[in-house]
Amino acid sequence: MASTFGKIFKITSFGESHGKAIGGVIDGCPAGIKIDISEIQKQLNRRRPGQSQITSQRQESDKVEFLSGIMDDITLGTPIGFIINNNDAKSSDYESTKSIYRPSHADFVYEKKYGLRDHRGGGRSSARETAVRVVAGSIANQIISKQGISIKAFVSKVKSLEITKNYFEYNLDKIDNSIVRCPDKDISKKMISLIKDAKDNGDTLGGEITCVAENVPIGLGEPVFDKLDADLAKAMLSINAVKGIFIGNNKTEAFGSESNDVLQNLDGKTKTNNSGGIVGGISNGNDIFFNVSFKPVSTLMQVQDTINDQGKKTSINPKGRHDPCVLPRAVPIVEAMTAIVLLDHFLINKTNKIL
Amino acid sequence: MASTFGKIFKITSFGESHGKAIGGVIDGCPAGIKIDISEIQKQLNRRRPGQSQITSQRQESDKVEFLSGIMDDITLGTPIGFIINNNDAKSSDYESTKSIYRPSHADFVYEKKYGLRDHRGGGRSSARETAVRVVAGSIANQIISKQGISIKAFVSKVKSLEITKNYFEYNLDKIDNSIVRCPDKDISKKMISLIKDAKDNGDTLGGEITCVAENVPIGLGEPVFDKLDADLAKAMLSINAVKGIFIGNNKTEAFGSESNDVLQNLDGKTKTNNSGGIVGGISNGNDIFFNVSFKPVSTLMQVQDTINDQGKKTSINPKGRHDPCVLPRAVPIVEAMTAIVLLDHFLINKTNKIL
Amino acid sequence: MASTFGKIFKITSFGESHGKAIGGVIDGCPAGIKIDISEIQKQLNRRRPGQSQITSQRQESDKVEFLSGIMDDITLGTPIGFIINNNDAKSSDYESTKSIYRPSHADFVYEKKYGLRDHRGGGRSSARETAVRVVAGSIANQIISKQGISIKAFVSKVKSLEITKNYFEYNLDKIDNSIVRCPDKDISKKMISLIKDAKDNGDTLGGEITCVAENVPIGLGEPVFDKLDADLAKAMLSINAVKGIFIGNNKTEAFGSESNDVLQNLDGKTKTNNSGGIVGGISNGNDIFFNVSFKPVSTLMQVQDTINDQGKKTSINPKGRHDPCVLPRAVPIVEAMTAIVLLDHFLINKTNKIL
Amino acid sequence: MASTFGKIFKITSFGESHGKAIGGVIDGCPAGIKIDISEIQKQLNRRRPGQSQITSQRQESDKVEFLSGIMDDITLGTPIGFIINNNDAKSSDYESTKSIYRPSHADFVYEKKYGLRDHRGGGRSSARETAVRVVAGSIANQIISKQGISIKAFVSKVKSLEITKNYFEYNLDKIDNSIVRCPDKDISKKMISLIKDAKDNGDTLGGEITCVAENVPIGLGEPVFDKLDADLAKAMLSINAVKGIFIGNNKTEAFGSESNDVLQNLDGKTKTNNSGGIVGGISNGNDIFFNVSFKPVSTLMQVQDTINDQGKKTSINPKGRHDPCVLPRAVPIVEAMTAIVLLDHFLINKTNKIL
Repeated sequence: MASTFGKIFKITSFGESHGKAIGGVIDGCPAGIKIDISEIQKQLNRRRPGQSQITSQRQESDKVEFLSGIMDDITLGTPIGFIINNNDAKSSDYESTKSIYRPSHADFVYEKKYGLRDHRGGGRSSARETAVRVVAGSIANQIISKQGISIKAFVSKVKSLEITKNYFEYNLDKIDNSIVRCPDKDISKKMISLIKDAKDNGDTLGGEITCVAENVPIGLGEPVFDKLDADLAKAMLSINAVKGIFIGNNKTEAFGSESNDVLQNLDGKTKTNNSGGIVGGISNGNDIFFNVSFKPVSTLMQVQDTINDQGKKTSINPKGRHDPCVLPRAVPIVEAMTAIVLLDHFLINKTNKIL
Repeated sequence: MASTFGKIFKITSFGESHGKAIGGVIDGCPAGIKIDISEIQKQLNRRRPGQSQITSQRQESDKVEFLSGIMDDITLGTPIGFIINNNDAKSSDYESTKSIYRPSHADFVYEKKYGLRDHRGGGRSSARETAVRVVAGSIANQIISKQGISIKAFVSKVKSLEITKNYFEYNLDKIDNSIVRCPDKDISKKMISLIKDAKDNGDTLGGEITCVAENVPIGLGEPVFDKLDADLAKAMLSINAVKGIFIGNNKTEAFGSESNDVLQNLDGKTKTNNSGGIVGGISNGNDIFFNVSFKPVSTLMQVQDTINDQGKKTSINPKGRHDPCVLPRAVPIVEAMTAIVLLDHFLINKTNKIL
Repeated sequence: MASTFGKIFKITSFGESHGKAIGGVIDGCPAGIKIDISEIQKQLNRRRPGQSQITSQRQESDKVEFLSGIMDDITLGTPIGFIINNNDAKSSDYESTKSIYRPSHADFVYEKKYGLRDHRGGGRSSARETAVRVVAGSIANQIISKQGISIKAFVSKVKSLEITKNYFEYNLDKIDNSIVRCPDKDISKKMISLIKDAKDNGDTLGGEITCVAENVPIGLGEPVFDKLDADLAKAMLSINAVKGIFIGNNKTEAFGSESNDVLQNLDGKTKTNNSGGIVGGISNGNDIFFNVSFKPVSTLMQVQDTINDQGKKTSINPKGRHDPCVLPRAVPIVEAMTAIVLLDHFLINKTNKIL
Repeated sequence: MASTFGKIFKITSFGESHGKAIGGVIDGCPAGIKIDISEIQKQLNRRRPGQSQITSQRQESDKVEFLSGIMDDITLGTPIGFIINNNDAKSSDYESTKSIYRPSHADFVYEKKYGLRDHRGGGRSSARETAVRVVAGSIANQIISKQGISIKAFVSKVKSLEITKNYFEYNLDKIDNSIVRCPDKDISKKMISLIKDAKDNGDTLGGEITCVAENVPIGLGEPVFDKLDADLAKAMLSINAVKGIFIGNNKTEAFGSESNDVLQNLDGKTKTNNSGGIVGGISNGNDIFFNVSFKPVSTLMQVQDTINDQGKKTSINPKGRHDPCVLPRAVPIVEAMTAIVLLDHFLINKTNKIL
């Protein structure tokens, strides 16, 4: 009972990594909106493996095929069904781990939870599922961008190497000029070499992605449980490998007198923006920004201890084509989930008043 | 459309801070379970203001009255309705801020979102609402504790002062011996004096709460969107003043080879527990633990700049009885929301198999 | 997990018939709307027992107390919590049936389902719960009536005695002039004497209520599962004792050429209105009307065979103050549930377009 | 926001009649269950057009392709994605009605609701969507049949011609021996000739389907809003052309003393079964049965008056291959929706107790 995200603009996803196809249904998409299909494909390309030397070399074209809900590039208001075929699945890579649980992977817990699992490529727990989110997110993003909202994510930290300026001091429009998707040229280069080194050692890295949403109207988010930051937190922690989020500037170590944001005018602009554009769970008209923390990729190209399904200790030496660091490919996923949350709350907010 | 939390075990909350009463409806509570009503009141007492010298001095008895769903202390399986009257509301404290927006509060965004607001004590955005969660959480906690699950939260950091050991090196059974609810005696004392100093200056503090859930069965959490950590993140970020969460040990700066947890046996125990008891969104049988970050309280007892509802610059000098640091009172709230998430997933998990 | 109705405008109800109180939470109510509280009480009075000689003589004042969500008679957009105390509960009437299952009542299935039950007055299965719906429905009705929508229900059939004209040939504004709430004066009288006779014999009657909603805008209802008629059907069948519904004129026995409704203009008016104002699940601008069938009341004032909780055959001779025919008191309940469905779809419909 | 049905076992459907494909996602399907794929295809064949001389001659193979969630014919517990391609769509048949609203169809209301519509074959409002339900329903049916539950539907009335015996006096295992799917041989013949006559005249017919569910365990259904009969009502009224439902025997015209069902033993068996196996919204262990009313098909092969999208009066003379009476093909749809409701409540019911 767990494959749908959103309340009004909803994405339901399906698909195992090595099954026939993955796909989804976008329900609750407003009608009459022109969608640029090539833009969706462009976002998928930003997420797909094989795009650069620092990502997995699995060659998936990740071509999305729309089956319903869009006619002549215009949304019909009806559910948008789509599929992405799995072409380059090498299930044979996983034969050796059929009865072995990979460390820090979901193999063991799936088998305990369901009594069985699709062992090929992690099955449903594979990050391949996130392609579906990118499709839905791109559509959401196109819709809210027509309302002036702009979402930009970038890699702000790899291992302990992090950017040194505030997000607004960088040009975020050219993130993709860097294959690691970091806006700081020098740090970008260092990150790439860090990732290459890790790859050479069969090791992996984590880090942080920062996401910024500009021009979000005042009033998105609900007061109590469905706070905008609570829904963003759920969205982010639902992404594979994400373990943490922080909304706004971390002022845990400051006094209230240092962290409070002072209103300047009735547009909602505040002198500082420590709260990251959300107060009381509701957008306040300032930039929304937050940091998302990723743990290092669990699949190492190293021999590792583990146990098999008989409980016997054994070791594993994974094959497969994996990312030494998922951060660069995760940027469009973070943007996608952010767009879905913002559009959903945009639509929910329309029901707060009768007219 | 935003006042319900949970999918099967659900809490719907209502109530403004200075209205007649707050309250809630717990729906989906399993039938036939003996509830210790005095334990619920005990948890409310841990949350209520006026409990110590470092908390708000508002004197609310916070006595919960159950109206349905429990007969002779046994749950009927029907919705449990309950109310907590607002007795010591001093609405007059808020007359001066009727047309002024308090900094970093939700006053401004509420008025923009709804076109009006209950200005008395923050209305719906008041943390008073969390008393409702404590009631539901205590019932959830009693139910899962009968399944062996144990939840313990404590204050691990106030401002920059933090505990120095791992959670498992402390005795977490006696947290309440410290009025700041920190398990480290020495640091506890320092925290208290830090809070008193802030209070004397009319200033406020933030910090972190750590929460640990032991003996959670393997298999709670759903694979994709409703990951157990995603739902915990949403639960925590839905608490007033919370801006961040981190599940497990923060290994953002480590190699994968340093952060992977190696399975030891079919009970799921791993050599390390960096993932904090959750992999792929599903509990793996190890301790679940996470850190929750609170911003400093927004209500200062200082003169602060702001604007009024005409957009004119003005200043504010708040009255009211407020906490210089909410962390100690937030401990039972964090425990409550954790219990609700775990019971909900416990029940959801029953539907994964037909028998 | 079953005490909430609606998707955006939602009512969550709680309360056993003989507990302290029943009540509910209305969530998702639009903000800024003036509510006439006395009108809500008026609707409760139309539903309450003891209102006439042909209803149950239980004397409940059914006074609703609002606890939140409304300030100075204006909705705040926050959840509206309310309670109705149980004053005249005579639980002693039910001592004799504590271990006996009343025929055609839910006693037996509750005990099987939950392992226990509140035997006093049917507990949660009592029609007393519907007072909560009337509160929510009256608020919904006040909101949509400001949009021009008008809902009128009336008793069209008691046992085999039914009205002989179409609904639009009657004056539906004066339904309450008849204690049986039938718009036909002569038939009304006959119905009353039919009910009195049944009462004298300790017997009970069923019948039908017709509900008409005028000026419903075109476009309410969703295409596939959440068709407007499907949601009305669910709403009606969720009312105690309702076993059937028919939307529009029953043309089961007609040819398509006789039942099709021919469009006359772009306002949507059709020559005939056999479809009852809904085509393809969506309102078409004509009157929505439907018939709701009630089975006879299960509680007879007669000796009846049954079994006890040991499976032994026994007989029952109920006490308590019951309705010989619930139809007259069910009229405001049918109106209430209709109003909730229409307002909910009105709000849902706002999300079909981005602007 | 309306293309999902069910709370735990959920079907999300997508697809326009003349788009590339229709399909769906089944979420919440229990894991580890062997599914007979050929049985699903068999049920689709019972629904597909072109199966006999009294149905539409559109030739759709309606071959379902599963994309995920099932491995080696065993459910994985993950979402089951599937598609059914549209092969024989003759969109050219609909060119003439692009700007004309067909009588009693959803053309007009779709255009008003969404601002545009897919005019080809009714788009989303086409009954073609119900093939998706048959897939989900067949899987649900296979799962609950392993629990002993058996669902059988049949045509009990065409126009005014109806069966004369109780359902339990017929052999319901051989329904498909009759192309009209009526268990009464003689009446079956008359129904077929009635349908042929209507077809010859370009006219259409409605009627009733009776559905029986045997061996449903006691306790399915929730007390208040999610009564089992309320959910069945919603399920049935969500099927195209359905306008009414009646649960159990229609005792509107009887006395309570005639309609009450007397319990015989602790298995729940009652002397009569007027309530149709559901009391207080909860299954009571007796056969569940209900009647579903279908209006005559709206598409006539006759010249009919209507208006165009400029509001001008015009006439329509439909092409396309349509059913003169949908009842025979609707039998597997009614069974499918019944199976979905019963499995969903079966799973929901597992959460009423903690163990």
